[in-house]
Amino acid sequence: MIIVMNPGVREEEINQVVERLKKVGLGVHLSVGEQRTIIGAIGDRKLVMSMGLEALPFVEKMVPISRPFKLVSREFKPEDSVFKVGAAGIGGDEVMIMAGPCAVESEEQVLTAAEGVKKAGAHVLRGGAFKPRTSPYSFQGLEEDGLKMLALAREKTGLPVVTEVTSQYNVDLINEYADIIQVGARNMQNFYLLRELGRLHKPVLLKRGLSATIEEWLMAAEYIMSGGNYQVILCERGVRTFETYTRNTLDLSAVAVVKQMSHLPVVVDPSHGTGNWRYVPAMAKAALAAGADGLMIEVHPRPEEALSDGPQSLTVENFTLLMDDLKRLASAMGRQLGGHKVAAV
Amino acid sequence: MIIVMNPGVREEEINQVVERLKKVGLGVHLSVGEQRTIIGAIGDRKLVMSMGLEALPFVEKMVPISRPFKLVSREFKPEDSVFKVGAAGIGGDEVMIMAGPCAVESEEQVLTAAEGVKKAGAHVLRGGAFKPRTSPYSFQGLEEDGLKMLALAREKTGLPVVTEVTSQYNVDLINEYADIIQVGARNMQNFYLLRELGRLHKPVLLKRGLSATIEEWLMAAEYIMSGGNYQVILCERGVRTFETYTRNTLDLSAVAVVKQMSHLPVVVDPSHGTGNWRYVPAMAKAALAAGADGLMIEVHPRPEEALSDGPQSLTVENFTLLMDDLKRLASAMGRQLGGHKVAAV
Amino acid sequence: MIIVMNPGVREEEINQVVERLKKVGLGVHLSVGEQRTIIGAIGDRKLVMSMGLEALPFVEKMVPISRPFKLVSREFKPEDSVFKVGAAGIGGDEVMIMAGPCAVESEEQVLTAAEGVKKAGAHVLRGGAFKPRTSPYSFQGLEEDGLKMLALAREKTGLPVVTEVTSQYNVDLINEYADIIQVGARNMQNFYLLRELGRLHKPVLLKRGLSATIEEWLMAAEYIMSGGNYQVILCERGVRTFETYTRNTLDLSAVAVVKQMSHLPVVVDPSHGTGNWRYVPAMAKAALAAGADGLMIEVHPRPEEALSDGPQSLTVENFTLLMDDLKRLASAMGRQLGGHKVAAV
Amino acid sequence: MIIVMNPGVREEEINQVVERLKKVGLGVHLSVGEQRTIIGAIGDRKLVMSMGLEALPFVEKMVPISRPFKLVSREFKPEDSVFKVGAAGIGGDEVMIMAGPCAVESEEQVLTAAEGVKKAGAHVLRGGAFKPRTSPYSFQGLEEDGLKMLALAREKTGLPVVTEVTSQYNVDLINEYADIIQVGARNMQNFYLLRELGRLHKPVLLKRGLSATIEEWLMAAEYIMSGGNYQVILCERGVRTFETYTRNTLDLSAVAVVKQMSHLPVVVDPSHGTGNWRYVPAMAKAALAAGADGLMIEVHPRPEEALSDGPQSLTVENFTLLMDDLKRLASAMGRQLGGHKVAAV
Repeated sequence: MIIVMNPGVREEEINQVVERLKKVGLGVHLSVGEQRTIIGAIGDRKLVMSMGLEALPFVEKMVPISRPFKLVSREFKPEDSVFKVGAAGIGGDEVMIMAGPCAVESEEQVLTAAEGVKKAGAHVLRGGAFKPRTSPYSFQGLEEDGLKMLALAREKTGLPVVTEVTSQYNVDLINEYADIIQVGARNMQNFYLLRELGRLHKPVLLKRGLSATIEEWLMAAEYIMSGGNYQVILCERGVRTFETYTRNTLDLSAVAVVKQMSHLPVVVDPSHGTGNWRYVPAMAKAALAAGADGLMIEVHPRPEEALSDGPQSLTVENFTLLMDDLKRLASAMGRQLGGHKVAAV
Repeated sequence: MIIVMNPGVREEEINQVVERLKKVGLGVHLSVGEQRTIIGAIGDRKLVMSMGLEALPFVEKMVPISRPFKLVSREFKPEDSVFKVGAAGIGGDEVMIMAGPCAVESEEQVLTAAEGVKKAGAHVLRGGAFKPRTSPYSFQGLEEDGLKMLALAREKTGLPVVTEVTSQYNVDLINEYADIIQVGARNMQNFYLLRELGRLHKPVLLKRGLSATIEEWLMAAEYIMSGGNYQVILCERGVRTFETYTRNTLDLSAVAVVKQMSHLPVVVDPSHGTGNWRYVPAMAKAALAAGADGLMIEVHPRPEEALSDGPQSLTVENFTLLMDDLKRLASAMGRQLGGHKVAAV
Repeated sequence: MIIVMNPGVREEEINQVVERLKKVGLGVHLSVGEQRTIIGAIGDRKLVMSMGLEALPFVEKMVPISRPFKLVSREFKPEDSVFKVGAAGIGGDEVMIMAGPCAVESEEQVLTAAEGVKKAGAHVLRGGAFKPRTSPYSFQGLEEDGLKMLALAREKTGLPVVTEVTSQYNVDLINEYADIIQVGARNMQNFYLLRELGRLHKPVLLKRGLSATIEEWLMAAEYIMSGGNYQVILCERGVRTFETYTRNTLDLSAVAVVKQMSHLPVVVDPSHGTGNWRYVPAMAKAALAAGADGLMIEVHPRPEEALSDGPQSLTVENFTLLMDDLKRLASAMGRQLGGHKVAAV
Repeated sequence: MIIVMNPGVREEEINQVVERLKKVGLGVHLSVGEQRTIIGAIGDRKLVMSMGLEALPFVEKMVPISRPFKLVSREFKPEDSVFKVGAAGIGGDEVMIMAGPCAVESEEQVLTAAEGVKKAGAHVLRGGAFKPRTSPYSFQGLEEDGLKMLALAREKTGLPVVTEVTSQYNVDLINEYADIIQVGARNMQNFYLLRELGRLHKPVLLKRGLSATIEEWLMAAEYIMSGGNYQVILCERGVRTFETYTRNTLDLSAVAVVKQMSHLPVVVDPSHGTGNWRYVPAMAKAALAAGADGLMIEVHPRPEEALSDGPQSLTVENFTLLMDDLKRLASAMGRQLGGHKVAAV
């Protein structure tokens, strides 16, 4: 941590900071520049941050040098983490495709979607039973009935299930039914929920918050891992910007950044990322080319009748066409789609 | 709701939309322009939105005309809502000042702060006992012990207490101690929590999410009100932008917008809004001049020793100077500070 | 254009708007909803917008229905525009790679870079002779000397040259040397410059402004085209967001949106888009997969000695490796790199 | 400047950086931390930045410590700059009100507006003769005819004139007519234009770019000042965010930040900042309370007939009411409106 002193700082003020750092056992490195005097505090970053030095009137600012995360970092674990979910893997050279409806609406809808995406080559079935909605007057999901429909679809197709947990209250219930537990963007910093998930032994798919920095997102993963659950899958789903032609701005560079800084697999959701089915295939391919370890795609048998997010759902037909493109791309990149090595070009 | 059809839409496609709208009982208004055909759907907005029409390949987009909120709107209740908390009021011409430390750290700290802000003229004591923190390794609050210290400070000074609820789990506990229950920015769309608060009979201070639109913020208030609790106080605390010289960008125009659209009182938190005590007095005064019904200001007896957010806390001395300025401003604007009519200029 | 009236609007107020619309020859379509009365104005969008109706106290807002651009739109020209630059083409199934240093620094530097990128398969040499810099104290480019060095490199390698125009003052000079004229992000709305470029008969590469919406970007292209120059190449180079781990946030979904709305080719600059050479290869591949018609990549013989933007420049070696990946990807997608049909998989 | 090395950096890599710094005459300060080795480079910031060290593969990042601006900073000039324009002053305790139409449309319109704002107490007349417009099909201003109308209004009312320069081409023309030369948000980083203005001896009102950081804005002022013209007035006019209920998000905290860092006066434009006349009075008052040295407000005799930006223009009546409020506020804050000391409360 670098402590930057005000221009014109006096010696006794510098000494006051130095003494406080030394008293708690931190190393001190003083450097007098032409315009600023800076003090390097060597040791535990969180200890320095908890000292409140920035509130001193003669301290201009504090500049962190090291990253705040540990367990998620490549320095902690240099090689890629790979998790198995059913027959498929995610991470390393394995790419996992998760597909299905935004919300579970009926047995018929889930089964049709599940069979469709299975046939097209998806590895995991997605579907929401609990739906966090902006308006209290919108459809909020079928809740446990929805979970049972997902379980039935799993039984019929063999596809593992990813579904969203929306509250600490339903962690146990979701855990009973899900193969991967999804944390939505709005809950990325619901720290109580993250801690509960840290106690489980099951992959957690952690969506990036709507305006979360990559650092905050990795810190949210750190919450789960610091509880003992190391199976965290990160999911980029678009951030909020000024642009209105798309629902969100899908930040694919976050994939490249995360792959450099962390060993955790990262997945992209182009459906929420764009909010428009017309743009989903292009963004799905781009995500794969950017190095994503998986994709999460909304597919609905009849999008125009969907109770939630129909405009961003692909039909089964369009999803099947997309899967063909993805297989060719994965092959050209030497990656495997879901445990099955694709022949290299 | 306006449904905009693709250029070159065919008549049977238009008819298909019209028929579906009519079937669910909505009024239909067709308008053929030079470049686009549009269909106005007259009736329940949420019904139209749930029909998935935007997923039809010949529908370009849907444009909402009316606002999605009801109970929070001035159309529902034209006159300002005014709530009483202890001796002071908020809303109408009454301005309420809430002040105190970011986090409760010790009995001595809370009592000193409480006495200081009381003497300077604050009406409510703020202080966090449960602290949501970005890092799992940071200080997370004194929890129930902290609540007891707040209760003690209330006993000694007579100041009502506002403190943050961070989870459905601790709603009952917080309700036992707090006079105003605060919902933090990260929980603004924790809909399960909002629903719990809708069952209480106590003012809720609802902070705007870090990147929440004004519409989403008002919809979050609608969640609480739709549960039966009409005492919602909105709190602007800065939104996330590209600017890095301030921690957040305090959006004071949101005060003007909310006052026009809603009858609910709105408060500003310049401490989180700027993240720097140097800018707090200017932004506190600006908030009052913009029409805010209250202020929430962090005050710490010794900011440089604070365990949380010291850099944005005022000393008691600086807070006292600020209160003098605020009194003069309120007087010039013909408003009352905390139930005591300030002599007009 | 939809004119939304205030709730509770009176009949004479509605009539006042209707009369004014009719007086200028616009069609009128009145629709009385449950919550709002709306007036559809049929005819020339810019005429409606110039009437100032939104300033009337009983008008709540105006909602545009059609897009403001014409010449750039697919409705105006449904098939892809394809431009030839030297031997290579851009648009349709042809992908053009532009590469070279951020700034021209010396003859030796440009020639080495030009030969390196040529050998690796690039089709166009990029290099800046006039550099707009945030600080008045930074290196501002070699100006005409730099242009001469670019011309020499073109002579030696046969690569056409793209270079930036920074002011109306140097349009003629740049036009003398450049095969493609680049407009930088900061000049995207320098309308006087755009008009000058509209008079030329040469491709213009128009970078998206730092916080320009897609609509504003297309309107800037419309400026150039409305002057008579139809050869506009759009270039996405990252937008400004709250994220700090990358210099900008590369908005690849803009590629998909532009390809849907416009016939113009669109290029991506992953070097400025990320600001970090480590992320350039991933984003270059992602851009191609998203459907970009070209890439603009910074390559420097010795990035650690670059006078401008070294941190985002690839070495020639890394660029050569990237080109191999891009060829495989283009092949898998059935696209041609620079006029040479790549064998399909 | 701090150079942060990669974790696991080798000694010869550290030495390579140290040697390069020493060779150009910079001081070096090496500090080995627990997680990172950092190198402090002491001396000219721009020299360090031009060395391209960040491109070295073993350098993680560079962190600037001092600010890049000089002439604009309070370190360069501790006391407030005060400029005189006609009878009124700006800066220190003097507040200057500039008001008038967005665009000059006719002699009658300008004269009516000028007389109205003069009577209400404004000190400077604003009005645009050259209008940069997003669409090539919109009204672009009356150009020199408009300037003549402004000059006539000045003659009749005695009010000095502020008007926008939109290109290097018209600097001389604008200079002939204007008392203050305005640089619009889109031209904030038109560095060629800024350099031209640096040669004049007249106040320049420099609007903040739509997504310019405060640092970039101050650097743009530095461009003008480094040319020799020290009379720069900064103008905050709203930044672009995700919020759509207002046209821009007015960043009043920028006023507080600028007043701390710079000696230059800062003005606020609540008309462009909000885009809606309903919010202008609240934001004008808030700006004054935040410490702004002036306001720039759009006033139109008949906003509903304005050719440009009518929705954000006040009527003369509403502006007059606002001026009464502003006088009371200025008095409560001990500031002068336009050279006339307001009696303190």
